[in-house]
Amino acid sequence: MRINGTATRSVWLEPDGWSVGILDQTLLPWRVERLQLRSAADAAHAIASMQTRGAPLIGAVAAYGLALALRDDASDDNLARAYAALLASRPTAINLKWALDDVSAQVRDLPRAERAQAAYRRAAAICDEDVAINQAIGRHGLKLIEAIAARKKPDEPVNILTHCNAGWLATVDLGTATAPIYTAHDSGMPVHVFVDETRPRNQGASLTAFELGQHGVPHTVIADNVGGHLMQHGQVDMVIVGTDRTTGQGDVCNKIGTYLKALAAHDNAVPFYVGLPSPTIDFGVRHGVAEVPIEQRGAAEVATITGRTADGRIETVTIVPDGSAVANPAFDVTPARLVTGLITERGVIAASREALERTFPDHPSHRRPQEAAE
Amino acid sequence: MRINGTATRSVWLEPDGWSVGILDQTLLPWRVERLQLRSAADAAHAIASMQTRGAPLIGAVAAYGLALALRDDASDDNLARAYAALLASRPTAINLKWALDDVSAQVRDLPRAERAQAAYRRAAAICDEDVAINQAIGRHGLKLIEAIAARKKPDEPVNILTHCNAGWLATVDLGTATAPIYTAHDSGMPVHVFVDETRPRNQGASLTAFELGQHGVPHTVIADNVGGHLMQHGQVDMVIVGTDRTTGQGDVCNKIGTYLKALAAHDNAVPFYVGLPSPTIDFGVRHGVAEVPIEQRGAAEVATITGRTADGRIETVTIVPDGSAVANPAFDVTPARLVTGLITERGVIAASREALERTFPDHPSHRRPQEAAE
Repeated sequence: MRINGTATRSVWLEPDGWSVGILDQTLLPWRVERLQLRSAADAAHAIASMQTRGAPLIGAVAAYGLALALRDDASDDNLARAYAALLASRPTAINLKWALDDVSAQVRDLPRAERAQAAYRRAAAICDEDVAINQAIGRHGLKLIEAIAARKKPDEPVNILTHCNAGWLATVDLGTATAPIYTAHDSGMPVHVFVDETRPRNQGASLTAFELGQHGVPHTVIADNVGGHLMQHGQVDMVIVGTDRTTGQGDVCNKIGTYLKALAAHDNAVPFYVGLPSPTIDFGVRHGVAEVPIEQRGAAEVATITGRTADGRIETVTIVPDGSAVANPAFDVTPARLVTGLITERGVIAASREALERTFPDHPSHRRPQEAAE
Repeated sequence: MRINGTATRSVWLEPDGWSVGILDQTLLPWRVERLQLRSAADAAHAIASMQTRGAPLIGAVAAYGLALALRDDASDDNLARAYAALLASRPTAINLKWALDDVSAQVRDLPRAERAQAAYRRAAAICDEDVAINQAIGRHGLKLIEAIAARKKPDEPVNILTHCNAGWLATVDLGTATAPIYTAHDSGMPVHVFVDETRPRNQGASLTAFELGQHGVPHTVIADNVGGHLMQHGQVDMVIVGTDRTTGQGDVCNKIGTYLKALAAHDNAVPFYVGLPSPTIDFGVRHGVAEVPIEQRGAAEVATITGRTADGRIETVTIVPDGSAVANPAFDVTPARLVTGLITERGVIAASREALERTFPDHPSHRRPQEAAE
């Protein structure tokens, strides 16, 4: 998508043909700075520090991280070391392990001299596959938006609420939840997006609002508390969110607060959709609330906030009294019963075991040990 | 309640016998500063700038504002001017008009020489009545907490979630939603409070956490997105919130985001209570979502946030990209069907027209014109 009018991906191979470029997302929306990753350690650091984030993008950067490692030293030992370091860089994202396993499998049986090149090739393919998945999600989601637009006056925008950033900055390009939105906007359909601020890390206010604004999509930033009120008053036509992990029965693990919006959508008969690239499906897990481990992040994310001062400095301020305890679970689980549909690359399907199994009979997570042990 | 160990009210008559003291709540939790109000204009400014806030407290400060006006000039004209200025200081709070009408009715038929003294007397009585109401809410709410505690192990705290600040800082003392909490804590019962940050003005993180901490009540600050997840995992025993206005059928208008917590409580069978002082009941309004006008506040409350820098300065930073639109509705309405009970000064009652009318047959809002016109 566009930044300052220039088409940009979230990760790319630099012109030198081997180092890897990313945007430093910790500086957005204030500064657009590009980082050059030269080693697996650089890649692991970028993921751990959330300079690069979003489940699909983490997978792509990790894949390039293995390629960088193999360029330095193509031994089995170094492959194992880099695999472990990259896997440890974030605890929850399923795409991370999926991408690392994928690249490892591609290179393991090759002569050392061929491994790095094969890893680069596979990393580039993972990026292109991500974009292709998101384009398909965009095409399928577009039909849902078109159906709502058909019931409105011409030129009356379709109002879509989204939470967190499942935008192109969280993927290689186009985004998951945003793919239908960008596809509709680029086709000339009037859309307007309510962007949840998404405390505590504010990925909505700082990333989703930024990328929608840069691409020219009309949008309004709201506090996370507002969506229910808007739905009560008919101001939201549909919700589209992303997911970090969706279970075999269609429970959706996503950024903390997603569940509250799903409840409000259900209470007001607003359709609630999830942009779901199939790599985030996990057939090895069934009951989301009971089984998905939720990452507990540091208190500083809640107790402090970073923004721009009147004189243009980036400053972090404390917003919780000294001595007050803080809790910071990063994700919650929206039960399948609250999900109107899953927008996958193979079409819009019900959030149910039957629909997921019928649509993805060949999904790699069917073969996971925990499933086999049942 | 206590600040630095000293019992404090949110508004008081100064030792000089005529000027009025308040806490500057815009500086909390960072600095405890007291302000001296010397005129009706001072009182109106303090309310409009939210140096003093919370529906019951605004009423008490406005009552003293009329007393200050009458001390300067006890004419009918000046009374009318001060009434109008104070009424215009905040658009939504029903207590404001209620207190102004009350004081006006007390002084209107008196000789000028007696008006100021009568107004001071009535303002002091309004303060004491507020405290008495909250003490009664505390006593009735205590029984609800005791009933939950009886089902838990001894020493296992009752976990109570609250939203915004319906604490003693929003009233003259004790608070409404917090009255049962302080009453339970002071009686030696173990309670723990989950404090919603309450974006965009952060009254939870900056006021509720501050007052609970100063009074020694264990608490944990959470982002507004977190409550649903905690309820899914059995970590919340009950919700208690305040209200700015409750309709004749029991719909509860309160700080934006309250509705989302009510939905989550309902979905997880967590009891959802409202601390309801009867002056905030409005029998003149029936259907909350359709009829209660919602104050739209400025974009800066969402686009910026104020906190303390590492070197101790109070700094305001921008957290939304330039060019992004912002919406900021300040309240939402929780339908009566989601409310387990209303904790009033006359007991815990159902959120229904029948229960409200049975309990408050003498309520002044029964006589409002809009009701008579039905």
